[in-house]
Amino acid sequence: MTTGAVVLLSGGMDSAVTLALARERGRDCHALSVRYGQRHSSELDAAARLAHTLGPGRHRVLDLDLRAFGGSALTADIAVPEAPTGGIPVTYVPARNTIMLSLALGYAEVLGAREIWCGVNAVDYSGYPDCRPEFIAAFERTANLATRAGTEGAGFTIEAPLIAMGKARIVREGLRLGIDFSATVSCYQADPQGRACGRCDACRLRAQGFAEAGVADPTRYR
Amino acid sequence: MTTGAVVLLSGGMDSAVTLALARERGRDCHALSVRYGQRHSSELDAAARLAHTLGPGRHRVLDLDLRAFGGSALTADIAVPEAPTGGIPVTYVPARNTIMLSLALGYAEVLGAREIWCGVNAVDYSGYPDCRPEFIAAFERTANLATRAGTEGAGFTIEAPLIAMGKARIVREGLRLGIDFSATVSCYQADPQGRACGRCDACRLRAQGFAEAGVADPTRYR
Repeated sequence: MTTGAVVLLSGGMDSAVTLALARERGRDCHALSVRYGQRHSSELDAAARLAHTLGPGRHRVLDLDLRAFGGSALTADIAVPEAPTGGIPVTYVPARNTIMLSLALGYAEVLGAREIWCGVNAVDYSGYPDCRPEFIAAFERTANLATRAGTEGAGFTIEAPLIAMGKARIVREGLRLGIDFSATVSCYQADPQGRACGRCDACRLRAQGFAEAGVADPTRYR
Repeated sequence: MTTGAVVLLSGGMDSAVTLALARERGRDCHALSVRYGQRHSSELDAAARLAHTLGPGRHRVLDLDLRAFGGSALTADIAVPEAPTGGIPVTYVPARNTIMLSLALGYAEVLGAREIWCGVNAVDYSGYPDCRPEFIAAFERTANLATRAGTEGAGFTIEAPLIAMGKARIVREGLRLGIDFSATVSCYQADPQGRACGRCDACRLRAQGFAEAGVADPTRYR
């Protein structure tokens, strides 16, 4: 039997590579994106482009407007920093990955899928606490205590295949897997056409990854 | 300084008592409800009535339509059982408490609140896995690894004051705290006016609690 997997798909390069890895491993993939009021909503168009190859009914976009809480440069009227700031930056969205993984967990349980794949990365990253391996391990444990499937049957595993990869390696993995990186959007303040600012943390980490990998980055800048 | 708390308020009797306990303990309370596509949406009217005493701006209702996933008698076209079924019943909403607590966590972090109160109960309950003490403990640990506040400062605590109480004791606590139980809605298939069916699990547990406490239940039946 094919193992079912829910893949969290933001539309950035990391989740694109994660989805491709899950498919390479033969998983029966369902992509989940969340319209959470993010400033860079063009990433959702990117997610739709990336999920297209999964076929119809395999990509769900859930609405959850986290602007109701605010508190982040991605969801409130706070400027996105265009230089490193030290510490956890203001682009951190409180509890975002916990919320996303919880939603993926609910969806996976309904589908009968037993894996949740996500593109978190703890090497070339912005210092978000919910991208660390210890967070992923704790969430997996919680997920198995929380659910019918974790309690009565085979439990859930959270797969974070990029967690120990640097950005350059992620770029190389993506190229190996045939990903069209021009379809992805990383910039925190991408315009509606998905064109990047070139100055935010996400743009800098992405450009650095392509540069280190010695590959041209197809990002369109505005 | 007063301790801030986000209280998950469904509008049922357990969350009403939880909110009253948090207030009794002097917490600076913010109530959070989620419109998740529940069949018994009149519980949200009950939540608004209960939160009214907190004053303006102290009750937030977040929209998150879990009908997009389905898989539960509360969110899909599956009948609510009117007799005990054994095992985890079909009214179980996959990952609901993980999702709710994650949302409360995000809200608490934005507010600078360090406590999340919820009315889960593992005695007279429907057998949901996400109502057990081990789930709450695992979630608390995850929350502290997930967040800026848990990583850089004093962490979060999840308060579940009813977890070891039977329904009769919850009723007595509520009376002691002056709760108007007629303002609460427990029934899984309450009508738009909040009138109960008297037959579902939630109705049976509630009625049993009032009976054991020797108190008249002000529930309006349809």
